[in-house]
Amino acid sequence: MGYEDRQDPVEATLGLLHELGVSGRMVGAEADAWFVSPKRYLQLQQNVEQAGGRFVDASRLIEEQRVIKSDEELAHIRTGARAAEGAMRAAIGASRAGTTENEVAGAMSAELIRGGGEYAGLPPFITSGPRTSLCHSTWAGRTYVAGDVLNYELPGVVKRYCAGLYRCRTVGRPSDEVARRGAIVREALERVLEAIRPGATSGEVHNASKAVFQKHGLGHLLGHRTGYSVGINYAPDWGEGQIMSIWDGDERPLRTGMTFHLVPGFYDLGRYGIIISETVLVGRAGCEVITNFPRELFVV
Amino acid sequence: MGYEDRQDPVEATLGLLHELGVSGRMVGAEADAWFVSPKRYLQLQQNVEQAGGRFVDASRLIEEQRVIKSDEELAHIRTGARAAEGAMRAAIGASRAGTTENEVAGAMSAELIRGGGEYAGLPPFITSGPRTSLCHSTWAGRTYVAGDVLNYELPGVVKRYCAGLYRCRTVGRPSDEVARRGAIVREALERVLEAIRPGATSGEVHNASKAVFQKHGLGHLLGHRTGYSVGINYAPDWGEGQIMSIWDGDERPLRTGMTFHLVPGFYDLGRYGIIISETVLVGRAGCEVITNFPRELFVV
Repeated sequence: MGYEDRQDPVEATLGLLHELGVSGRMVGAEADAWFVSPKRYLQLQQNVEQAGGRFVDASRLIEEQRVIKSDEELAHIRTGARAAEGAMRAAIGASRAGTTENEVAGAMSAELIRGGGEYAGLPPFITSGPRTSLCHSTWAGRTYVAGDVLNYELPGVVKRYCAGLYRCRTVGRPSDEVARRGAIVREALERVLEAIRPGATSGEVHNASKAVFQKHGLGHLLGHRTGYSVGINYAPDWGEGQIMSIWDGDERPLRTGMTFHLVPGFYDLGRYGIIISETVLVGRAGCEVITNFPRELFVV
Repeated sequence: MGYEDRQDPVEATLGLLHELGVSGRMVGAEADAWFVSPKRYLQLQQNVEQAGGRFVDASRLIEEQRVIKSDEELAHIRTGARAAEGAMRAAIGASRAGTTENEVAGAMSAELIRGGGEYAGLPPFITSGPRTSLCHSTWAGRTYVAGDVLNYELPGVVKRYCAGLYRCRTVGRPSDEVARRGAIVREALERVLEAIRPGATSGEVHNASKAVFQKHGLGHLLGHRTGYSVGINYAPDWGEGQIMSIWDGDERPLRTGMTFHLVPGFYDLGRYGIIISETVLVGRAGCEVITNFPRELFVV
């Protein structure tokens, strides 16, 4: 249903509905979706009911179909992963003491786009030092200094489908604490990859990373979201976490064809954050890792 | 009002409202704003009314305050304009027959970010050939060929404030028609700049470009939006066109401190589009042009 720049989209929709016939029919709309304002929704409801139709909340009826990907959708996600990997190499290559977040983000963005990357529903996250302890922080002109933890979280978006890739680095040798915690995050990721299979529940997969964090005394730092569904993306998000996430207590089973960005890790507020991620497919036999990038906490 | 990742934002808001006292009080919410879903809005309304409060639609009460900018806001828009100008130079410098939209967009993005640019509510629009005739089309890997019209529409965003800049080029000499129409668009922009002053209505300013298009027999191609307010930006837009636009029949007067991205031009569907823009401030004495970039249809 298209509409002109100054046309009322609800009036245009109602025009079509009246053409199709509303009286005695059921009309579903998504009450829990972005981009239909409450005013528009209520205007639609009132008009449908006045015309003798039954107006129902159809939230998630279509949205939840997105969670299982077709082969064509998977092909886009794979191409997006290649763009993210190339951009990650460019970002790491540009990172050194004395450079700025913006220079690194600029070099990374150029490579992301050259690799076929499109605009994502959230910006790439390129940050350094204490602000790495804030989820979703990004470039703000800060200069890299020795000892910094650096974060790179990149959305490789192709035909609006997103693959995510998150890595961390340090400027110079990491402290013993950072090195130890980085190894814990990597171990958690590897246990999560092993736990991914059709039939495992979201909560069970989350428990695989939780167990690693708790074993090493870092349970208090663990984020409660080990991953989120990825696929087609719209602002204000590049993921599909509103449809399905991998987190505490979620009893929904994983099914073949689901794709997730797995982001086990932590944000130690005011200090630094470490996440090592992969984008994966739930395959028939288990987990297929779509992204391909070394998991070490490299020194730059 | 902050809330945790898995917390219900409406429940969190209601908690605060109950603390402040709802009974007998009026609670306003924006029914016509993005990012509050109909479900959330109705949940809030029901709870406020059950607690003896009066729930009212407060749409535009705060939003319309945004249209007049403070000196601090203007400073961000000016810095954004510098970022857009640098990125425009990089984009034009990278444009030649045989290059691709993605290479140009990559070079442009790197420069935009190095100049302080942030993520905008819409992507930059870098396109070529027939797809320049589609508003809001952007890079898709196409290779530039001789004779192409090229479009560059860039958002220079600093501290979330946006300055826009739109230019067009051709690969090799423009055809006589393209050169003539480019001159018409430039003339329209110049008449619009002269028409901008406090007290002029939105519709009057639009008429300045309409008159030029009609004089040259291009009235049928003219877009009905000569400009839109710019300032703080959120997805799904980088402008504030929902608050104020410069277009046909709008009787609202321009006031000192308003800022607009002026985009007179046309999209000749299936062929090409030409827009030459400036971001401007409505100053006490008339129009102050914030962006500074040559207005010619350069050959690249």
